[in-house]
Amino acid sequence: MIAETSRTEIDRIIAAATTAAAQLAVTTPGERARWLDAAADALEKAADELVPLAARETHLPERPRLRSELLRTVFQLRLFGQVLTDGEFLDATIDHADPDWPMGARPDIRRTVVPIGPVLVFTASNFPFALSVAGHDTAAALAAGCPVVVKAHPGHPELSVRTRDILVEALTAAGAPTGTFDLLCGVEAGRTALRHPDIAAASFTGSEAGGRALFDIANARPRPIPFYGELGSVNPVVVTLGAVKARGPELAEGFASSFTLGAGQFCTKPGLLLLPEGHGLDETLCAAVASVPGQAMLNERITDGYRSGREQLREHPAVTVLSEPGPADDPIRPTLLKVRADDFMKSAESLAVECFGPVSLIVEYADEAELRAVLGVLKPGLTATVHAQESESDMVRTLLPALTRLAGRLIWNGWPTGIILSWAQHHGGPYPATTAPVFTSMGTAAIARFLRPVAWQGFPDALLLPPLRETNPWQLSRRINGIRVTPADG
Amino acid sequence: MIAETSRTEIDRIIAAATTAAAQLAVTTPGERARWLDAAADALEKAADELVPLAARETHLPERPRLRSELLRTVFQLRLFGQVLTDGEFLDATIDHADPDWPMGARPDIRRTVVPIGPVLVFTASNFPFALSVAGHDTAAALAAGCPVVVKAHPGHPELSVRTRDILVEALTAAGAPTGTFDLLCGVEAGRTALRHPDIAAASFTGSEAGGRALFDIANARPRPIPFYGELGSVNPVVVTLGAVKARGPELAEGFASSFTLGAGQFCTKPGLLLLPEGHGLDETLCAAVASVPGQAMLNERITDGYRSGREQLREHPAVTVLSEPGPADDPIRPTLLKVRADDFMKSAESLAVECFGPVSLIVEYADEAELRAVLGVLKPGLTATVHAQESESDMVRTLLPALTRLAGRLIWNGWPTGIILSWAQHHGGPYPATTAPVFTSMGTAAIARFLRPVAWQGFPDALLLPPLRETNPWQLSRRINGIRVTPADG
Repeated sequence: MIAETSRTEIDRIIAAATTAAAQLAVTTPGERARWLDAAADALEKAADELVPLAARETHLPERPRLRSELLRTVFQLRLFGQVLTDGEFLDATIDHADPDWPMGARPDIRRTVVPIGPVLVFTASNFPFALSVAGHDTAAALAAGCPVVVKAHPGHPELSVRTRDILVEALTAAGAPTGTFDLLCGVEAGRTALRHPDIAAASFTGSEAGGRALFDIANARPRPIPFYGELGSVNPVVVTLGAVKARGPELAEGFASSFTLGAGQFCTKPGLLLLPEGHGLDETLCAAVASVPGQAMLNERITDGYRSGREQLREHPAVTVLSEPGPADDPIRPTLLKVRADDFMKSAESLAVECFGPVSLIVEYADEAELRAVLGVLKPGLTATVHAQESESDMVRTLLPALTRLAGRLIWNGWPTGIILSWAQHHGGPYPATTAPVFTSMGTAAIARFLRPVAWQGFPDALLLPPLRETNPWQLSRRINGIRVTPADG
Repeated sequence: MIAETSRTEIDRIIAAATTAAAQLAVTTPGERARWLDAAADALEKAADELVPLAARETHLPERPRLRSELLRTVFQLRLFGQVLTDGEFLDATIDHADPDWPMGARPDIRRTVVPIGPVLVFTASNFPFALSVAGHDTAAALAAGCPVVVKAHPGHPELSVRTRDILVEALTAAGAPTGTFDLLCGVEAGRTALRHPDIAAASFTGSEAGGRALFDIANARPRPIPFYGELGSVNPVVVTLGAVKARGPELAEGFASSFTLGAGQFCTKPGLLLLPEGHGLDETLCAAVASVPGQAMLNERITDGYRSGREQLREHPAVTVLSEPGPADDPIRPTLLKVRADDFMKSAESLAVECFGPVSLIVEYADEAELRAVLGVLKPGLTATVHAQESESDMVRTLLPALTRLAGRLIWNGWPTGIILSWAQHHGGPYPATTAPVFTSMGTAAIARFLRPVAWQGFPDALLLPPLRETNPWQLSRRINGIRVTPADG
C-alpha cells in the first residue's frame, strides 16, 4: 500500500508544475517530441522490470497482454512526437489586414494554440501502462506543452510509483524542467488536487459513478476547468440476417473472443449482441464461450462489482442463460445471456447497462422495425458495430443515423475491442460515453483537449510566436486569408 | 411584455427541433449555406422595420450603431456560409488500412464531424442583432447542422419575436425543415429548456452571475451537455513609457473613445488602463472624456447595475476621480477613475472587476516590476492590449507570457472594442472569460462547438459520408495517412 499524498506534498507538486508550465510554454514542439521519445525509450528499456510488476498487481497475463500493452504505450508517446513534428495541431491561422473586408476594415489577426496549463490525469485500472502513469493522456498533455500531475490508480500502486520514477528521470535527462511530471496517490489527494486553483484541466478514464463525481467537483470550483472524462459504454453489435446466413459460426467465435478479451475489462467490450430471431447460433455461441479459459480479474473490488452486475442481469425474469460458469467461479469464466427484444425494451434501464467483465447479453429481434426500436432505447456510448453483407447496404444505410447518434465510432464487420491509435481514430461519444463529446480521448486529435487558442492582433512579426510569423519558419501548413496553404505551395 | 413560453409550448418546440435534427444531419453544407444566405437576405430586406424597433427597445442609436450592427449580423450569416463552402470544418481524416502500422495491423478508419443536435442559445442584451436571435451563435449552430432554439433576451422582446418570424419564414422558404429554428421567452422557460433531455448543447453571452447559474444547470443534468458561456472580462490595456512619450494625447483620445463606445456596454470594454507614473496625461484624458456625449443605457436594470458598480469603484478610499458627470446623471456620461498600482493590488478583488458601462480605472505603475506585479493579480479575460514602441520590443516580449495567460486575444497598438469576424479571430479565454476556454465564441472557428467527431472503421465506400469517400466528391482538403492533402495535390 502506498501512502496518501499529503496536502503539503500536493501543494509542492502543483507549485512545481505551475512553475514548469511557464517554462514549457516557450519550448518548441521539436523539444517536446524529444522528451516523449526519451520517455518511450526509457519505458521500453525497463520492460523486464515493469511487466512482471504489472502482472503481479493486476493479474493480467505478461504475454501477450502486458508486453504488447507496454509496446502500445511506447508507441503512443512516439505518435504524439509525430504530431508535434507535423505541427498542424497548432492550427496556425493568419488573416492579413484587409481594408475591404466586408464587415469593415480588418486588422492583421493571427491565431494559434498555447498549452492550457497543468493537467491532472486520473488513470485507469484496466490498462496499467497504456491508460495509466505514462499513458495516453500523459502523452497528449505533455505533447501539448502542459505539465502533468497523475493521480495513481490504487489497482497498481507500485507500478505507478516505479513508472513515475522512470518517467521523471527520462524527462529530466532529456531537458524537461523540474515539475514537468509527477504523481500523487490517494482518493482524497486526487480530489484536493482537482480543486487546486492552478490545475487548468483534468482527464479521467473509469466508471460512470467515479467520473461523474470528479466532473461535478471540476465544475463546482470557483473557476471551473475543462474535465475530460471517459466513463464507459455498452457497445451494441448489430448482426443482420444476411451476415448470420453467410458466416454465422465465424461471427459467434469473433463475438466470444471480443467480449471475453481481457476478462471483459475493456470500455469497448460488446455488451449487447443484436441477433435476428431464428439465428440458430446458440450452440455455436455456447461452445465458443465454453472454450474461453478462466481469467482472474484486476482486483477484488472489480470482481465483486462484476459478480453483482452479472447477477442483476442474470436474474431478470425475461433473461435466459445461454452459458455460464459452474459454482466454482474462480478464476472468472464468461457468461452469455439472452433476452427477447420486446422484453429488453421494457427493461432497458436495467438491461442496457455496462457490466465490467466477461458477460454479454444477446437481444433477439423479430424484424428490422424491432431492431430499429431497440436502437432507439439505447444510451449513447463509445462504439456501435454492424455485421452485414454488402448486398444489405440499403438496409444498413437506414440504420446509420441511429447508430451515429449512439456512438463515437462505428465498426463494419469487425469488433469494437482493440483500439488502433492513429490520425483518424476517435474514442468518445455523447454522455455517458464521455463528459466532453466534442473531443476524443484517444488518437492524435486528443492533444486538442489541452490547448487553448489565442489571437494576436496587429503585432510586429518579431513579437509573434514562430507558427504565426510571415516567413513560416517551421514550415507549417497554415490557413491564410481563409485559404489552406501548405509549405510546398508557397 | 411578451408572455413566458409555457411548458407545453417548450416541449413542442424542442420536439420539433429534435425531429429537424435528424433531417438536418443529412443535409449538405451547400444546402445550409443557402439557408444562411436566405436568412441574411431577409434580415437585410427588413432593416427599415427592424432597426427602429431595436432602437426603441434598446436605446441604442440607429445610426451608425444599429444599422452597422445589422450589417454585421448579415455578414456573420454569410461568413458561415463560406465556412460551409470551404468544408475544412469537416476535419475529414482518413487512415487507410495498414498491416505494418507499428502498433499492430490498422483497419481502415475515417473520421469527420456530425452535428451535435438541438442547440439552445441564450442571447445577449447589448447586441440586439449580432448576439441575439439571428446572431453569431445561431449562425454557427445552423451552419453546423444543428436546429436552434433561442431564449429571447427580455431587453428587446418585440425585436426578438419579429426577428424570429423573419428567420423562420426565410429558412422555410429556402427549404429548411420545420423545427430548424424557434424562439422561447422567459427566464424559467430558458431554464426548463436547458434541462430538456433533447437539448444537446447550449451557448450564452452575458454576465458572470447569469452565465454561471446556467452553466451549473447544464452540468447538473442527468446527462450533462456542453455549455459555452461567454461571461465577461476586464480587458486591461498596458501603455509603456515609450508610447506615452511618442503619442500620449492620441492614446488618451483612443482610450476615451474605446471605453465609452456604446456607453461602455461591450464585453471588450477596456476597464483598466495601466499607465506609467508621470505620464502627464490627466488633463488630456479629462478633456477627451468630457467631450463624449451622454448616452442612455440599454435598460433600467443595466443602468442601476452600472451606477452601483461605479459607486463601488469610486468610493474606494484609494481611488481618485479624474472625470465624472455632474449630479444630472441622465443620460449617462462617462466616469474616469485612477489609483496607484500598489493600492490597486491590495484591493484587486474589488477593483479588478468588470463594471458594465462607461467607466474605467487608470492604474499608475512605478516601473516594469510593478507593472508585472499588477498583471499577476488580474483574472483571465477576453483581451489584453499593449501600447508600445517597436523599440521597446525586448521589454514587451518579457510581458507576453503574462498577457497570454490573461487573455484569448492580445492587441498591439489598438483597442479591444470592435471585434472583426474572420478566420483567425478568437473571442474567448480562461474562466471567467468563458466556461469553455478551448473554444471561441466568435469567428469561423466557433462552429466547432456544435460538431462532434465520429469515426467509421472498415466501412464500404458507398456507406461512408461524402467527406470520407475515396473519390473525395466534395473536393475537400483532407488528412490522409497523416499527410495533409489538398484537392490540387491530386
